[in-house]
Amino acid sequence: MEGSRSGTAGKPIKCKAAICRKAGEPLSIEEIGVDPPKAWEVRIKILCTSLCHTDITSWKQNVEPFAIFPRIFGHEAIGVVESVGENVDEVKEGDTVLPVFHPNCGDCKSSKGNGCSVYMRRPGLTHYMPRDWTSRFRGLDGQVIYHYLRVSSFSEYTVVDVANIVKINGLYPVDRVCLLSCGVCTGVGAAWKVAGVEEGSTVAIFGLGSVGLAVAEGARLRGASKIIGVDLNPEKFEIGKKFGITDFINPSDCGDKLVSEVIKEMTNGGADYCFECIGVASVMADAFASSREGCGETVILGVETRGTPLSLNPFELLGGKTVTGCLFGGLKPKIDIPVLARKYLEKELNLDDFITHHLSFQEINKAFDLLLEGKSLRCIMWMDK
Amino acid sequence: MEGSRSGTAGKPIKCKAAICRKAGEPLSIEEIGVDPPKAWEVRIKILCTSLCHTDITSWKQNVEPFAIFPRIFGHEAIGVVESVGENVDEVKEGDTVLPVFHPNCGDCKSSKGNGCSVYMRRPGLTHYMPRDWTSRFRGLDGQVIYHYLRVSSFSEYTVVDVANIVKINGLYPVDRVCLLSCGVCTGVGAAWKVAGVEEGSTVAIFGLGSVGLAVAEGARLRGASKIIGVDLNPEKFEIGKKFGITDFINPSDCGDKLVSEVIKEMTNGGADYCFECIGVASVMADAFASSREGCGETVILGVETRGTPLSLNPFELLGGKTVTGCLFGGLKPKIDIPVLARKYLEKELNLDDFITHHLSFQEINKAFDLLLEGKSLRCIMWMDK
Ligand SMILES: [Zn+2]
Ligand SMILES: [Zn+2]
Ligand SMILES: [Zn+2]
Ligand SMILES: [Zn+2]
Repeated sequence: MEGSRSGTAGKPIKCKAAICRKAGEPLSIEEIGVDPPKAWEVRIKILCTSLCHTDITSWKQNVEPFAIFPRIFGHEAIGVVESVGENVDEVKEGDTVLPVFHPNCGDCKSSKGNGCSVYMRRPGLTHYMPRDWTSRFRGLDGQVIYHYLRVSSFSEYTVVDVANIVKINGLYPVDRVCLLSCGVCTGVGAAWKVAGVEEGSTVAIFGLGSVGLAVAEGARLRGASKIIGVDLNPEKFEIGKKFGITDFINPSDCGDKLVSEVIKEMTNGGADYCFECIGVASVMADAFASSREGCGETVILGVETRGTPLSLNPFELLGGKTVTGCLFGGLKPKIDIPVLARKYLEKELNLDDFITHHLSFQEINKAFDLLLEGKSLRCIMWMDK
Repeated sequence: MEGSRSGTAGKPIKCKAAICRKAGEPLSIEEIGVDPPKAWEVRIKILCTSLCHTDITSWKQNVEPFAIFPRIFGHEAIGVVESVGENVDEVKEGDTVLPVFHPNCGDCKSSKGNGCSVYMRRPGLTHYMPRDWTSRFRGLDGQVIYHYLRVSSFSEYTVVDVANIVKINGLYPVDRVCLLSCGVCTGVGAAWKVAGVEEGSTVAIFGLGSVGLAVAEGARLRGASKIIGVDLNPEKFEIGKKFGITDFINPSDCGDKLVSEVIKEMTNGGADYCFECIGVASVMADAFASSREGCGETVILGVETRGTPLSLNPFELLGGKTVTGCLFGGLKPKIDIPVLARKYLEKELNLDDFITHHLSFQEINKAFDLLLEGKSLRCIMWMDK
């Protein structure tokens, strides 16, 4: 850390962050102190960050132990390394990086899935740094401010474990690549790695937010012949077409029919792959019911926060249906994000149409309003504006 | 059919069959008439048949439309072709064949699973021949007697669709190969094709009947490092060792601990593959809970006949767990049964230890008692004794 160009290495940094002090209340932009990175940690200057539905879900959460404040939300971002702690060789000051909530320690060699045994031990609790279980954020009065999902990108500076860092080419357009930090990877990965959508197959997607549209984009790139979007908002069909949605179902328009019945008619017996991107147990059951007898796969991407169990008919499983789920689309961030970034540059992967708004970081509460009202897909917030 | 050596081709055959006239009551051996095979059908002289748990389940079934009598049960058997109907080129008089409940029409080319779109249209109802939806069995008074699972092997002669026939080398020991007609294939196939058990992986099997032991045998052949059997009957551990069971859990001996907790301790976080071979929704949930966080797969083989739904925690799915199920172990009978028969001859696959009893067909009710009392795995009933 000696000889750091920034001159701030090894010292606390004072900067602005958007603090949430109470569930569901507007964030307040305040000055905070950000400690230097400890061993295996990286301090990052955030360039831009976007707002993901999971931030909203956690921001509304008012039940212990998940409701823990004051806290800095945000987990989809891109930044530049300001300084690194001991034992960090993978990145250095000045590198462009994506912080990613889903860890990838490099030690987990399993070819199955993308779990990281080292870091997944406290999967639900992410208010501290993962190794020493303390915070790097303090108010100017010395009060501890909590982390979020190991990223906390609603701050000009943040500290992230090296397992949660992906190095990226600094010449890429930062607002586009920023989206690969969470939502787009979750959707595209679910279609590619988890379901393995093939050419000519049929797909049904429940919920056309950014994650659902990213599933469509992944299915489109794989050559699915029919990609059915299901959403209560009729405007989603026009948006969805940009990502490969070929057919649209508004459950309000189905009359006496179940959505699953409509899908079975459209697909001659059920969709090969169904994706639930909302987080409602009854919609997960609808997705399962809509999947093809004997071989249909249902992938759960939505987070069911009310604890409602998913109820399945064992006979349908016995016939050969599958249900699974994934975090971060089953992708290994350090390996797969650079691949997707290249696919964007090669104009294969559509990232542009996810970005519906640009705001300055100061306007962060407006970004919350836009997403809550269903008016935005991704809103990029620029830290220096 | 002209020139048939048997002289019976094209005519009804009178023979003995074990008739079930009422749910749960002893079968009665009676003389019946078996019509000649229609187009795409094969009439078979059964050599020997065994009793599978599914026969027992259906025999107990007293709810419409599944309780339909008089009926000829039995679906694990081997026989010789007596005559064939029009359009049957695949087998001829004198060929040794296995009748198999799970169809394999030859037209279904999908690489995914083993579903047969032609024949799976009425999967739950199997009391008639699948193409013309009539019976080939009559009592001597002319009363219709119903088929079962497209096989009805508790009869000296039966008629089966060509999609449910697998030709087999007539020099193989018939009582061993008979087991490949159902239970052994279901278990071995689930371990190989559905789960894809790999070398060094950990496996937990709930229920050590023939299907559960066949899962163990499949996992053993694939090199699983730990194969945990779960059963309330302590005698199953000794039997299980013959099929590769390395560890045994009797739920009665777990004290305050859940079976899933014991399995998680034994496997450092959960078994890679869990198999439910009983058919009880709460045990299916136990199997899911016992599977490894982030990548564990649960395979449902048991038939939940009481209609109890399977309740799953969506968070565990989201973390990457999978639940699936299969019929006939995900195998395509015409392709995979001959492969397994060769593995038996090459002394790789243990079939011998499944056979615990031999009886004459006349003693069929004793076979029911032995299985109901948990005293038998497979009881071979010989038609000519
Ligand atoms: Zn997110
Ligand atoms: Zn790891
Ligand atoms: Zn069976
Ligand atoms: Zn078929």
